[in-house]
Amino acid sequence: MTMSTEEVNNLKHAPALEGVLPLFLDRWSSRAFADRDVSRADLKRIFEAARWAPSSGNAQPWRFIVGVKGSETHAKIAWALAGFNKDWAPKAPVLILGTTNAVNSRGAANAYAMYDLGAAAVCITLQAEALGLVTHQMGGFDREAVRKELGIPESYVFGSVMALGYQDEPAALANDDLISRETAPRTRKPLSEIAYSAWDQPAVLD
Amino acid sequence: MTMSTEEVNNLKHAPALEGVLPLFLDRWSSRAFADRDVSRADLKRIFEAARWAPSSGNAQPWRFIVGVKGSETHAKIAWALAGFNKDWAPKAPVLILGTTNAVNSRGAANAYAMYDLGAAAVCITLQAEALGLVTHQMGGFDREAVRKELGIPESYVFGSVMALGYQDEPAALANDDLISRETAPRTRKPLSEIAYSAWDQPAVLD
Repeated sequence: MTMSTEEVNNLKHAPALEGVLPLFLDRWSSRAFADRDVSRADLKRIFEAARWAPSSGNAQPWRFIVGVKGSETHAKIAWALAGFNKDWAPKAPVLILGTTNAVNSRGAANAYAMYDLGAAAVCITLQAEALGLVTHQMGGFDREAVRKELGIPESYVFGSVMALGYQDEPAALANDDLISRETAPRTRKPLSEIAYSAWDQPAVLD
Repeated sequence: MTMSTEEVNNLKHAPALEGVLPLFLDRWSSRAFADRDVSRADLKRIFEAARWAPSSGNAQPWRFIVGVKGSETHAKIAWALAGFNKDWAPKAPVLILGTTNAVNSRGAANAYAMYDLGAAAVCITLQAEALGLVTHQMGGFDREAVRKELGIPESYVFGSVMALGYQDEPAALANDDLISRETAPRTRKPLSEIAYSAWDQPAVLD
């Protein structure tokens, strides 16, 4: 017997720390998407959150290609997915391909193109979470195929393909491997491995 | 006469859209930092938010060097700042240098190193905002100098230097150029230039 949606969300929840927004602790990357559309109003809210993300020199280099289920764009993005992503992600009602302009307005390389795209993308995931939606970003897709199919210029590079929609029960997943990933606890490095007061000296935060 | 803190925050606030978290709309990058320390408890909350950010293959490639005012690390990061960043950022009680491991656990390039760091960094800015703190990320600093001074290995690349602290009145800034930047409205591309249903076709979100 697999876990219910509620049980799996409880399992995935990061330990609470007073004062930390629950948004950061609740968010996790489900692969079980229900057969339920995302409203246009929610899509607008999600991209509005991304729109106000900070970027280097306010370049806002990001450009998101949004495939809604049933559209040619959704089909093309789904088709380009690699490996086991094909087993679950095409079911998501929205697939978003994140791209970013690696060339700045002066024609030089933008060293912050990927950095800024990552920031805008996580704003999407957090705003989605606030709307009761779930997201899952994937790096496994055929970049050259999707570039050709969608006619994306060479100056744009790729971030992730993000699946967006409503969460389904783990049991709705296609196979046991997916169910077992869905119901495994989340893991992270301890704070002492991410915040330092000098290169080799963990910051004292307690 | 310059604007008060309240006036400038009202000016910088993005237009509200029902259902979008105010957090995304309120956040902006002030340069006016008050002479007031950030508590250790708040630093912990901020890095806890970053800790649970998503990353490719859950690699969590980020590593933040946190310089608290008065420390050698703060002085070294402040010293490496370029141009007019030197006129305001050293006043911030905390300077955070974001670094990320560009080499993955198999010794190959991690194409998502900067993307993931950007995501974790914006979680820091949003959690800081929730705590009543302000942040400002800078790309203008001498990377080789700071690498040498802080002993950062070659495999790590740099994101931003982030100033973190409490906001001060615009008039507290050192010169008119800074005050004029501080009191200028925020600008962003319209939604039709960031969300597309195909490469050249803006998504219909209304």
